[in-house]
Amino acid sequence: MTPIPVDDPADPRLSAYTQMRERDLVGREGRFIAEGEVVLRVLLSGAARFRVESVLVSPERLPGLAPALAGLDAPVYVAAKPVMGAVAGFPIHRGVLAVGLRGPERDPDALVPAGPALLVGLVGLSNHDNVGGLFRNAAAFGADAVLLDAETCDPLYRKAIRVSAGTSLTVPFARLPTGDALLALCERHRLTPLALSPRGEDIGRLPPLPRALLLLGTEGPGLPEALMARARRVAIPMAPGVDSLNVAVAGAVALHRLGGERLAPI
Amino acid sequence: MTPIPVDDPADPRLSAYTQMRERDLVGREGRFIAEGEVVLRVLLSGAARFRVESVLVSPERLPGLAPALAGLDAPVYVAAKPVMGAVAGFPIHRGVLAVGLRGPERDPDALVPAGPALLVGLVGLSNHDNVGGLFRNAAAFGADAVLLDAETCDPLYRKAIRVSAGTSLTVPFARLPTGDALLALCERHRLTPLALSPRGEDIGRLPPLPRALLLLGTEGPGLPEALMARARRVAIPMAPGVDSLNVAVAGAVALHRLGGERLAPI
Repeated sequence: MTPIPVDDPADPRLSAYTQMRERDLVGREGRFIAEGEVVLRVLLSGAARFRVESVLVSPERLPGLAPALAGLDAPVYVAAKPVMGAVAGFPIHRGVLAVGLRGPERDPDALVPAGPALLVGLVGLSNHDNVGGLFRNAAAFGADAVLLDAETCDPLYRKAIRVSAGTSLTVPFARLPTGDALLALCERHRLTPLALSPRGEDIGRLPPLPRALLLLGTEGPGLPEALMARARRVAIPMAPGVDSLNVAVAGAVALHRLGGERLAPI
Repeated sequence: MTPIPVDDPADPRLSAYTQMRERDLVGREGRFIAEGEVVLRVLLSGAARFRVESVLVSPERLPGLAPALAGLDAPVYVAAKPVMGAVAGFPIHRGVLAVGLRGPERDPDALVPAGPALLVGLVGLSNHDNVGGLFRNAAAFGADAVLLDAETCDPLYRKAIRVSAGTSLTVPFARLPTGDALLALCERHRLTPLALSPRGEDIGRLPPLPRALLLLGTEGPGLPEALMARARRVAIPMAPGVDSLNVAVAGAVALHRLGGERLAPI
């Protein structure tokens, strides 16, 4: 790794970093932006499955990151924070950015393990904080993969990666067109589809389910009734008068119960 | 309830709503701002323990809210959204605001029930999303009260109330100066202080604890070691390589395990 100093915000080598917020909305043609040290370290680690196209850091951050960047086979640009801000279109306080390559889409069927399996299926989740949070929770509780319907937002959106603490770079994910396609996948692979519902069985009293897929929908409307009807309904007991949790929180509690038997405290 | 139309952003009757963001930072001398319909409905319900000083809504929102406002003994101002935005200093898209009165601080000892007890103690939590999220989770899992050290941010900060889905208006809370004072309260009331630690006992295998206080600290540094040493350490089992959850999520999983026995699925 030889750092490459850049002074000119218009330098074409930084073109992937320009107008970051506008491009967050329209997409980046096979690229994504990683920001902040936590996320960059995950991206550079063996745990992430994405290739790095380039890194852009401020001079202050280079010494601390140099060991992690040592083996990287991609350019490392170094620019002062005001230059970084001029390129991105807003101040980059942390001074750490990178561009990753999305690579080909994964085949959802290929992400289902042969033996014990715990997957998460997201239906219509359009909030990046919730999707990022769910990836973090899926990683913490050992889920094998996350499957997303077409309405669910992009786990490689800049903010989703950040909220996921970098785990959307490590937990495998794939797209299916609809919730129905998720249920069809459950049938093909003999996975029990589970849906959270206040009127379901107490999740604390479920028998062990060696192969399960937890469906999660948006906080307000929840999962479509037609999907609910085809899933096994499980409830997280709550205090009287309270009828909902944040979806990432509900997912965490459910994955803790479903994945807990597979995980040992350290 | 007789709605009072207001056209002039400089009308002194709206002075509590002016420069909202600036005042979020400096405080409001015994008042707080509630925003959005979900929060207003909680504030107006019997569940909230705070008095309403006034309500400010846009004309479009008045018909839907009129039944909830019917019994209110406080002025209801009605102003067009551009007027609301001019008063507040930024656009009020939802068109629903209210000013509540904080009332006297609560005595923490008075919030500890005599029989079975489950409390939450927050130490050094300075993020309003996390504090709001923890109130929501405390409410969902039936915690009796939340106790806050002096470093923890205000649950009645506008954004904390919103993220709490209004539960910071209903779950009792009180301040203590320090984490040490929280532990002293535990001793006075024979509460078992619990702290989350990867090296603790598996929280899923704890014996029932009829009287407990769950301590939660900031995500990065966590609880001070001196507090940890005096608490019973419990672990949420996690996948190898993952060592942390968002603090509101960790609190939810722990409260689900600790409070679950007291709650029945609906």
